[in-house]
Amino acid sequence: MVRDRHPIFIVGARGYSGLELARILLKHPESQVKSCFATDANWSLSDYIYNEKAKSVPVHSMQELAPQIAALNGAPCTVFLATPADVSMKLAPSLLAQGANIIDLSGAFRIDSSSFKKWYGEEHHAPEWIAKATYGLVPWSTPAAAKGPVLISNPGCYATSVLMALIPLLKAGLIDADSIVIDAKSGTTGAGRKASESQLFAEVDGECLPYRVARHQHLPEINAYLEKFAGVATDVAFTPHLLPTRRGIISSIYARLARETSIAEIQDTFARAYAGYPLVKHGKADPKLMSLKRVVGSARNHISYEIDGKRIFLFSTVDNLLKGAASQAIENFNRVLDLPVTTGLFELEDLT
Amino acid sequence: MVRDRHPIFIVGARGYSGLELARILLKHPESQVKSCFATDANWSLSDYIYNEKAKSVPVHSMQELAPQIAALNGAPCTVFLATPADVSMKLAPSLLAQGANIIDLSGAFRIDSSSFKKWYGEEHHAPEWIAKATYGLVPWSTPAAAKGPVLISNPGCYATSVLMALIPLLKAGLIDADSIVIDAKSGTTGAGRKASESQLFAEVDGECLPYRVARHQHLPEINAYLEKFAGVATDVAFTPHLLPTRRGIISSIYARLARETSIAEIQDTFARAYAGYPLVKHGKADPKLMSLKRVVGSARNHISYEIDGKRIFLFSTVDNLLKGAASQAIENFNRVLDLPVTTGLFELEDLT
Amino acid sequence: MVRDRHPIFIVGARGYSGLELARILLKHPESQVKSCFATDANWSLSDYIYNEKAKSVPVHSMQELAPQIAALNGAPCTVFLATPADVSMKLAPSLLAQGANIIDLSGAFRIDSSSFKKWYGEEHHAPEWIAKATYGLVPWSTPAAAKGPVLISNPGCYATSVLMALIPLLKAGLIDADSIVIDAKSGTTGAGRKASESQLFAEVDGECLPYRVARHQHLPEINAYLEKFAGVATDVAFTPHLLPTRRGIISSIYARLARETSIAEIQDTFARAYAGYPLVKHGKADPKLMSLKRVVGSARNHISYEIDGKRIFLFSTVDNLLKGAASQAIENFNRVLDLPVTTGLFELEDLT
Amino acid sequence: MVRDRHPIFIVGARGYSGLELARILLKHPESQVKSCFATDANWSLSDYIYNEKAKSVPVHSMQELAPQIAALNGAPCTVFLATPADVSMKLAPSLLAQGANIIDLSGAFRIDSSSFKKWYGEEHHAPEWIAKATYGLVPWSTPAAAKGPVLISNPGCYATSVLMALIPLLKAGLIDADSIVIDAKSGTTGAGRKASESQLFAEVDGECLPYRVARHQHLPEINAYLEKFAGVATDVAFTPHLLPTRRGIISSIYARLARETSIAEIQDTFARAYAGYPLVKHGKADPKLMSLKRVVGSARNHISYEIDGKRIFLFSTVDNLLKGAASQAIENFNRVLDLPVTTGLFELEDLT
Repeated sequence: MVRDRHPIFIVGARGYSGLELARILLKHPESQVKSCFATDANWSLSDYIYNEKAKSVPVHSMQELAPQIAALNGAPCTVFLATPADVSMKLAPSLLAQGANIIDLSGAFRIDSSSFKKWYGEEHHAPEWIAKATYGLVPWSTPAAAKGPVLISNPGCYATSVLMALIPLLKAGLIDADSIVIDAKSGTTGAGRKASESQLFAEVDGECLPYRVARHQHLPEINAYLEKFAGVATDVAFTPHLLPTRRGIISSIYARLARETSIAEIQDTFARAYAGYPLVKHGKADPKLMSLKRVVGSARNHISYEIDGKRIFLFSTVDNLLKGAASQAIENFNRVLDLPVTTGLFELEDLT
Repeated sequence: MVRDRHPIFIVGARGYSGLELARILLKHPESQVKSCFATDANWSLSDYIYNEKAKSVPVHSMQELAPQIAALNGAPCTVFLATPADVSMKLAPSLLAQGANIIDLSGAFRIDSSSFKKWYGEEHHAPEWIAKATYGLVPWSTPAAAKGPVLISNPGCYATSVLMALIPLLKAGLIDADSIVIDAKSGTTGAGRKASESQLFAEVDGECLPYRVARHQHLPEINAYLEKFAGVATDVAFTPHLLPTRRGIISSIYARLARETSIAEIQDTFARAYAGYPLVKHGKADPKLMSLKRVVGSARNHISYEIDGKRIFLFSTVDNLLKGAASQAIENFNRVLDLPVTTGLFELEDLT
Repeated sequence: MVRDRHPIFIVGARGYSGLELARILLKHPESQVKSCFATDANWSLSDYIYNEKAKSVPVHSMQELAPQIAALNGAPCTVFLATPADVSMKLAPSLLAQGANIIDLSGAFRIDSSSFKKWYGEEHHAPEWIAKATYGLVPWSTPAAAKGPVLISNPGCYATSVLMALIPLLKAGLIDADSIVIDAKSGTTGAGRKASESQLFAEVDGECLPYRVARHQHLPEINAYLEKFAGVATDVAFTPHLLPTRRGIISSIYARLARETSIAEIQDTFARAYAGYPLVKHGKADPKLMSLKRVVGSARNHISYEIDGKRIFLFSTVDNLLKGAASQAIENFNRVLDLPVTTGLFELEDLT
Repeated sequence: MVRDRHPIFIVGARGYSGLELARILLKHPESQVKSCFATDANWSLSDYIYNEKAKSVPVHSMQELAPQIAALNGAPCTVFLATPADVSMKLAPSLLAQGANIIDLSGAFRIDSSSFKKWYGEEHHAPEWIAKATYGLVPWSTPAAAKGPVLISNPGCYATSVLMALIPLLKAGLIDADSIVIDAKSGTTGAGRKASESQLFAEVDGECLPYRVARHQHLPEINAYLEKFAGVATDVAFTPHLLPTRRGIISSIYARLARETSIAEIQDTFARAYAGYPLVKHGKADPKLMSLKRVVGSARNHISYEIDGKRIFLFSTVDNLLKGAASQAIENFNRVLDLPVTTGLFELEDLT
């Protein structure tokens, strides 16, 4: 007897992350993509994805989302929100009330409402849901309990790359929490598909432009979850830069060592932190481990390190659209369904 | 006694071509840039150009253009229109009536009004001015007579690269006019600074996308001016492609030879055609002559050629913003003022 | 009972095509990669491929190839040669004599020996094997008969893109065989991983450089196999250009129509030519079909077309390392083993 | 009466920096480029530089250098060494003995001989000259005295960008000397024109690769000259990254503030430090000031800053081939000749 597949709805499906969600979920063994939703519904999934199944998934405008969830009469389903924070915070509460699990890729439910107002520049519409949301940093977060619909807040792309590298070291007391400097660089898909002058090829090419210096919205997210998962208060310096490439984030992280240590001890610390979690590869700083192309197209996070006696140099890379967005969302989905976290993800192999 | 400099107005000055015009004209020995105009006037030239003179040129909104010209009371001046065709065709007639010379970088006055309607998709607003305009392909066009204000229609970027390479050979009867195939590739600044999804870095990078196949608006311009300057009717195949680079056009041109010939004869044909014109460099096909970077930043046009017995292979490169737009406009301006065509242009040297 | 997997050896495995072969064959359901070979054997497959199986495949120096094949005592096996033509033509004969099937990705066995001398610049070492080789253009070539070891000559990357687009039209008598002009553009991985000044980032970036004008070695290959598969003698103009991108070929092809036709008839011609062959997608010229990124990472060939009354414009795209090299080699391998041509290839999905 | 121009010799002239030297010096009002020298002399300056004067400058092999200097019989001249450190340290002493001024663009004479051995990996050949060399960081260094031939050691590209930003702040006691973290990113021309696998387009594109983590040879240079010019001992963290672009360095620098301060005080500190020096532009962090393209092609250094209460964020950009190499060398040359530092440099304007 065939088990029924879990119904999936993807909102914001034509964005770069939304399409990655669709591409992976169409092949996921336990999911069935029922519909996609977008502001402009005048396109089809098979315009972008060459997979037979893509042809049979309809694209609808946003208004049809609530009726479709309602038609399930409360049967379990999952809605992936690959939408801006202001859209997600409006959609999530009513969908949850209708019985749908929500996996939200935006920043709507990651930080408390006063921080939200400060860093996102607007009043939060559903502050009561922030505390109920599970921040889905895999493997650090506790899987959401499956009783009733769950709201999972998928971590930010930069935050993911930073947290994965720093949590083990902070927990182990190896670095000075006051000394952390993060210089992050991202490909342009991180800014989404929206037309803007600053994202034109003619503008981005030839640059490595810092932006939102000292005021990027992932900064409070990083501090909040370093404290939550490592138990240490931090106040990191965080500066993102826009790279002239499409995909991939490299966060170069610098900190003072809290005490004498060795590469071997660092390596051991990461090995213990990620024992049993197959999507982190780590080791001494090495071009292969620091290369962006080695993570682009994969669900992995690569972490590498070097020390110079008193400081540590960390390099953490992810595909901003995968471990930084869509594939981590699917890890969270797998945990909601009590499946191995990498279900549906191992086909993601890097292009050589 | 110092001769008064000729007053200059640049409209559409924040566009990529407009800024190149400003950059060159600020250093031009006979011009004085009085004002720049743009839809959004909330910026200053010195945001973009590091030249002391840039600080003293005001930027105004479009409504102030007519009053400023009027204030000159008919004294000679020149207005460069680095505006879309639909803007140029509306502005030019009244400015001419006010006594200003117009050098228009758009396609508004290049082809007859019925062709304009077909290829630009709208009715022409000033069809009577099309025939009065001088098509400013330097050195092929006849300099505009200096009596009264003149309207010069600056050639299209693709058209410039193609016409410069084909006119000498067609005039000499060396190639079969029916056999011409043009495969042109352009950097993205050719599309201007306007935000659009298709011009995002994330979209353009990794591509070499053909566009407006068999229907690009430079196609009728090419045929019209091949006939005008070479005296031969043609019906070329023309296909532009968008390159993942900022600047530069390379037109690869293929044609059957009309009779047996040699590289030496081809070379001699170009040498005679461009004797006395310093901005063309030509020779047998060679990486140095075919390189885009060797023309980017310069006012030159490089033409190279190879033959295989029955066919000729031509490669013509220009900086789309210079010989393909701003510097050719200044060549035209120099001719209006009866100056050597390269006045103000020889400082444009390639970056190695 | 488990059927034994077919033993595979990859020579030149650290090259860009060699790694793609390894990546695909490690997951191929009927193959077992026994060893890789390279001039420098001081690396391991798992440096490049994140797949558990990669860890267990040894890399050897070239001298160990013959002994390893000998150790099989004539049992069936297949050697993929991802080596330069001069290496392939020396290795192939003795390996065939040892009983191994050879799938050669170089140009060693594609054209007759006098053409080889002219276009590759050296004497052929095994001219008797050229006629015995099967040119593996899938689906046009006849599958190699499985009796005894076979030598399959995998088509060139440019040639593949051109032949796939032109054969159906020439066979159908729709285009004038004398009028064909091909302007091809390739990513830099086509030049391999060998260090050279002309392939430096600082040189390639910002360019779209034509090379080997009228003398690229794929020119005789194109003419030879147009004649073989379409039955029409041609003498095409063919000019490759180097693109500032890593992967993908787009061949823009121009020809005169032999008679009046329509897009519908063209479409129908391609539909019949590629009925039952799933790796060609075709249609009227459209950004989605002309995009390089839509074939990069996939085994597909996209062909699109436009007509202007008397001419046809064709755009044919492939990933130069896949349908232009490794994945087509695996199609050939599948035919040797009498498997469906796409065995092991359907996981290659485009990155959005 | 025309003053005789100062004779110039450029060694390593076909390298990226060497060509920039030649391009600028050919137009410099007080210099006369006599000859260029290179290992391979089989090329001409006019292959790369489109300037009439380029045609008359011969290119010689390295052996002809000493005889040409000797032929001047001790008359003043200047040799620019755009050669690797191991070549420079061998050439400089004998050329100085012949009476030539040396401006060395390599790292040969920047740090003491024991540091040289540690960071450059070889024994120094002329340790006695290191102390006699003037480190030519303009405007910080004291101009070389003009009595007798001088050896000027031109600063490294990364070091220049870092020192220019940090010296004023350290001198003013505004930042904590122990807390400095530098994350630098450079275009690929910094690695020179030598062919290597790691510099291939196919390798660099899509990356932002850290290299020589904690062991780049500009690290001791930075510490040494921070101490010299700011009078403060430092032990900075310095990590260079290779950008997928041709030209430009951006150094993102992070430090703790030593005391409460304001943007206005920072701005004032820089204004005083660079009063009278026209090649620094600085201000609050802003895309225009942080843009690489705004310094590429120019001799300027842009410095921008932001503070977050306890830390400062600094961004310092230079064209690695100009202020990071050739144009600073010409500033030094101008000082040797007692000319204004920017002589010959003001024509370098950014391309918009």
